[in-house]
Amino acid sequence: MSTTIVTTPSGRAFISDNMAGASPQIAQAVVDAATGQVLPYGNDPYSDSARRRLGEIFERDVDVFPVSTGSAANGLSLAALTPPWGSVLSHPDSHINHDECGAPEFFTGGAKLVDVAGHETKIDPALLKKAVLRRAGDVHSVQPSVLSISQATESGSVYTLDEIRHLSAIAKDAGLRVHMDGARFANALAHLGATPAEMTWKAGIDLLSFGATKNGAMTADVIVSFDPAIAAELAFRVKRAGQLASKMRFHTAQIDAYLTDGLWLDNARQANAMAARLGDGLKAIPETGLLAVPQANIVFCRLPQHVTDGLLAEGYAFYHDRWEPGIVRFVTAFSHSADDIDQLLDAVRRHTR
Amino acid sequence: MSTTIVTTPSGRAFISDNMAGASPQIAQAVVDAATGQVLPYGNDPYSDSARRRLGEIFERDVDVFPVSTGSAANGLSLAALTPPWGSVLSHPDSHINHDECGAPEFFTGGAKLVDVAGHETKIDPALLKKAVLRRAGDVHSVQPSVLSISQATESGSVYTLDEIRHLSAIAKDAGLRVHMDGARFANALAHLGATPAEMTWKAGIDLLSFGATKNGAMTADVIVSFDPAIAAELAFRVKRAGQLASKMRFHTAQIDAYLTDGLWLDNARQANAMAARLGDGLKAIPETGLLAVPQANIVFCRLPQHVTDGLLAEGYAFYHDRWEPGIVRFVTAFSHSADDIDQLLDAVRRHTR
Amino acid sequence: MSTTIVTTPSGRAFISDNMAGASPQIAQAVVDAATGQVLPYGNDPYSDSARRRLGEIFERDVDVFPVSTGSAANGLSLAALTPPWGSVLSHPDSHINHDECGAPEFFTGGAKLVDVAGHETKIDPALLKKAVLRRAGDVHSVQPSVLSISQATESGSVYTLDEIRHLSAIAKDAGLRVHMDGARFANALAHLGATPAEMTWKAGIDLLSFGATKNGAMTADVIVSFDPAIAAELAFRVKRAGQLASKMRFHTAQIDAYLTDGLWLDNARQANAMAARLGDGLKAIPETGLLAVPQANIVFCRLPQHVTDGLLAEGYAFYHDRWEPGIVRFVTAFSHSADDIDQLLDAVRRHTR
Amino acid sequence: MSTTIVTTPSGRAFISDNMAGASPQIAQAVVDAATGQVLPYGNDPYSDSARRRLGEIFERDVDVFPVSTGSAANGLSLAALTPPWGSVLSHPDSHINHDECGAPEFFTGGAKLVDVAGHETKIDPALLKKAVLRRAGDVHSVQPSVLSISQATESGSVYTLDEIRHLSAIAKDAGLRVHMDGARFANALAHLGATPAEMTWKAGIDLLSFGATKNGAMTADVIVSFDPAIAAELAFRVKRAGQLASKMRFHTAQIDAYLTDGLWLDNARQANAMAARLGDGLKAIPETGLLAVPQANIVFCRLPQHVTDGLLAEGYAFYHDRWEPGIVRFVTAFSHSADDIDQLLDAVRRHTR
Repeated sequence: MSTTIVTTPSGRAFISDNMAGASPQIAQAVVDAATGQVLPYGNDPYSDSARRRLGEIFERDVDVFPVSTGSAANGLSLAALTPPWGSVLSHPDSHINHDECGAPEFFTGGAKLVDVAGHETKIDPALLKKAVLRRAGDVHSVQPSVLSISQATESGSVYTLDEIRHLSAIAKDAGLRVHMDGARFANALAHLGATPAEMTWKAGIDLLSFGATKNGAMTADVIVSFDPAIAAELAFRVKRAGQLASKMRFHTAQIDAYLTDGLWLDNARQANAMAARLGDGLKAIPETGLLAVPQANIVFCRLPQHVTDGLLAEGYAFYHDRWEPGIVRFVTAFSHSADDIDQLLDAVRRHTR
Repeated sequence: MSTTIVTTPSGRAFISDNMAGASPQIAQAVVDAATGQVLPYGNDPYSDSARRRLGEIFERDVDVFPVSTGSAANGLSLAALTPPWGSVLSHPDSHINHDECGAPEFFTGGAKLVDVAGHETKIDPALLKKAVLRRAGDVHSVQPSVLSISQATESGSVYTLDEIRHLSAIAKDAGLRVHMDGARFANALAHLGATPAEMTWKAGIDLLSFGATKNGAMTADVIVSFDPAIAAELAFRVKRAGQLASKMRFHTAQIDAYLTDGLWLDNARQANAMAARLGDGLKAIPETGLLAVPQANIVFCRLPQHVTDGLLAEGYAFYHDRWEPGIVRFVTAFSHSADDIDQLLDAVRRHTR
Repeated sequence: MSTTIVTTPSGRAFISDNMAGASPQIAQAVVDAATGQVLPYGNDPYSDSARRRLGEIFERDVDVFPVSTGSAANGLSLAALTPPWGSVLSHPDSHINHDECGAPEFFTGGAKLVDVAGHETKIDPALLKKAVLRRAGDVHSVQPSVLSISQATESGSVYTLDEIRHLSAIAKDAGLRVHMDGARFANALAHLGATPAEMTWKAGIDLLSFGATKNGAMTADVIVSFDPAIAAELAFRVKRAGQLASKMRFHTAQIDAYLTDGLWLDNARQANAMAARLGDGLKAIPETGLLAVPQANIVFCRLPQHVTDGLLAEGYAFYHDRWEPGIVRFVTAFSHSADDIDQLLDAVRRHTR
Repeated sequence: MSTTIVTTPSGRAFISDNMAGASPQIAQAVVDAATGQVLPYGNDPYSDSARRRLGEIFERDVDVFPVSTGSAANGLSLAALTPPWGSVLSHPDSHINHDECGAPEFFTGGAKLVDVAGHETKIDPALLKKAVLRRAGDVHSVQPSVLSISQATESGSVYTLDEIRHLSAIAKDAGLRVHMDGARFANALAHLGATPAEMTWKAGIDLLSFGATKNGAMTADVIVSFDPAIAAELAFRVKRAGQLASKMRFHTAQIDAYLTDGLWLDNARQANAMAARLGDGLKAIPETGLLAVPQANIVFCRLPQHVTDGLLAEGYAFYHDRWEPGIVRFVTAFSHSADDIDQLLDAVRRHTR
């Protein structure tokens, strides 16, 4: 771990939603879970309740595997869906392809990630149609085995239900399985106003990386499986990968609280609303250029360099040197308030003058 | 996850120390860490403080990698110390060999665990001397690469400092590296009254799985490296394995509180004292037979079947059918009180009559 | 590769049957295959003929994968039969466990080899019955997945058909698959006088490493699959492991000639007869002690040290320092003649005086 | 293996150079090696001679590992040069990326192949300069670790010595190692008229996949290492991957004969000359279009569909449906004669009319 410590004035960090803390209800749930003796490895009331709630929101039986990170959720899910000689079709800018140091390759035993491009970080159906058939049956080539889509995407766009169904159908018709990287699942759901069932298994998703950490939890993501046939395999994979927590109650208590009284959707709506507020504000500032109307909680825009410099000087934190010059990214979190956004907009306006 | 939920009356669970909750100070630390924005992946004040404290207790610079489970700590450590064609020498009853579903094989890319037996779950130096040389340089055989010792061992025995130094020297002389599985590190340390430095790098340990979860933390174990040369490699391995927590503050705040004001040693002393109290009490009951004087927090003894049955009927939980008939195991935790132990002893006495 | 070159006078090498050359018919077949253009990767007349012959000797459809070594045949076979979290049950002295530098662990992605002991290097059925059930369904443990038996064994003993059927039945009843390491398949078959079908699929074998190299071929072993369901998987595994020869005709021409006019069985009978002749001769020499009546082409016996020294001084080559003092091993090959054996026996007699 | 058998009239197959048989000298060498007893695993006179000859042609000590396929040579070489979290930089059309069913990912334990494009299937130095630095040191990304170049390339172009030196220098400056896929090494060498040393270690190559199979051998490729530090590691990797032949003499006798009296270069010159003759002839036929002047033994050109159809009808075999419509590929081999080429050209002329 690097020892560079950066602290920003509260509310001025927009680098990622993982800079936020945790919802008070989730912190309290962890404290409440800290007393008493229960069985380890998920055989406890907290885990039972979390499982029940997940079954409720997805309106069906699901198999549930709490893990400590989104990368673990993705890697383990993909490993259950592809043989080592398979290929995983994903967008070139997907987190699994770009930001996990080869975790999918590690978990799958060396499967290959194959790019399928598309606008707005969404996979193009026409390209997918070709990719799913690429050298199928040819022993000299890896075999298309899984489609992995991110919902919301890494740029903050959100697939419509029709788009998910369409991509899934293309994959399924060619015999592939479908994985959803839902690190920002709640943000996408809140944007669409859809049900969890509609956005997943009813649309063809086999395995979901259900993210909670970015949206108010601490360290708890969950693999949700809609295919009972792979549950046994996943249980072994999870244990073998060092992802079966002994005191699992501390993971599942987070999930349980996250799903109680709609906290998860409230948090996502707040984060999305803050992105929308920021987007609206930026649109009204002539010197800035919004790249797309925010759908989830990510805002990409153009800022003049002196504006960027001015914001950084005031302690604002955001990515500004990862893309072509002038492009910056703001990620809002459940913990951002309207005040935080308004102050940011004020600062942008001040520096644009 | 199984859905069997077992709850026992408070204090009557002796299956494992992972049935305990968390120390209140650790729960509070997590709550305190829940507010405010900080950088992810360990670049935050909580992680910085935990790293500083670990450096202090080990009296030197160390590299620190928080992970979510002991299996991950072990597997990642071993992967950094052996090539895939190496062998890991450990006791046949070691956790890595027996209880991790092949996690070391997974993380190392297929290294082989080779048994080196010995009494009291401790590796026999004479057998180790042979094992470290076994077919060294022979391309047809896996190559002895790492010695892994558990401190305290899986049966609750504790290596003396001299024993650790002796085993390490045998390994080092043959060119092997040395790993310590310290899932119950604090319990061993409390028993020996040694310093963390004496029990690790001063005795030849290269990498330590520093356990906190079983001794009052929630979900936080740590890889502590005494070899700067492998820190870079470990950073990539940790990320690639989905063990680099984005909101790492929630792991490191646990570690930080664990190491504050001697909480970790107080907890371990309490667990050990409860095991000793239980051992003393059982010794005084003629019908039972203590297998060994407890050193850490594990008590193995013989119980007549009707005593075992009676205890189970009262809600006591402990392993009783894993070894030869009549052998049972009680694991005490920091959360057990003298009252809990005395009530258990009363119950044993009642049923022996 | 070491640069130590040892050449022994013709016929005096008994270290292993891999010191023999190749049958003239096989050498001729390779020469005959060297002209003309054919499709690569097995789509050629030589491969077709070899496949047809294998189908004939096994009296059924089989899937055939020529590979370059027995270790590759074993590793690929096991990979097709166990998940990475599975265990492979084999004798502690098996080649896969002992002499392949972890090849099974490499090919399987980290499965665990679990010893099941037994006399004469044969697996004990009573021990197997326990092993196949060991922690089945327990997520903390590797899962018994494959039984692998060597026929003939590494010490030259041969399982009877009843023994194979019994072991296979135990494995199958518990849901395991069965692999046979047939590096010396022909020698075992010749000893039993059984049919290839009786010794394999009719006795419960799923996958066979069909060895030819040790018995007169050059570089050609074959995976023979009796389970059509795993043929597709094996094709990808073979290619991905660099074992799909482009000019496969040069592998399959060897196999084709090997199976023509009973060459393979003639060779095996010759090697076995030479071992029997050597065994008979040694029995008649009072100072030597035969450890077992040779069944295949391996002879274990006791020799006084001065006899061993005398033989070595005359250029005889054999293993003499791998087991307890005084134990030596002679491996006969198809290329040994009765004269070779009689001269060896003469030499033993000379040195015992 | 598919059972489709295609035989073409002798000399009319241009699908790949792996459709050729073997040079008579190599076939004879294998026959000569078939008698007598020698030590296994390369400790034999044939292997010693092959090693000596390789040392001679490369003008230095080299470590030599014979393997059965080019995919094995490539995969094992890359595994010795990159950690699992590394990336291998290669051209998108490289064999390792495209035609080995993920063998590099298998052998390396999940490293990632990253494309670096360029004209004529050669890596563009400007793109390479960016690629070698991509996210170096960023724990969230795979780390650039190896540059792999194909000489000759998959399209038959040949890097100049300056080009190799330039690419190597870029890689080395950034701390990467350099691998050369020399499946058609001799063809490239013959084209350049350079020495083996100049084209490899003097130009910065660390490990070479030295191909012989396509150029007159049967089943023998060789890993040639110019870095003594990785020889020990490679020996274990080779064994563990089932690539250490017990009767290695049958591999190395091929290599030995291949390198005797310049056979390897004669064969390559013949194949190259036939490609040049074909290219010259096609240039003179107005209806066809040569895509590039052939440098090695591959000719890409445009043919009208009716010409392609006509050639196929006469038994000519070549790839014609793998690229955009109208593009066909002819690969010449050492076994093609000037007559074969002239007949092909006659046929093209006939059909173009």
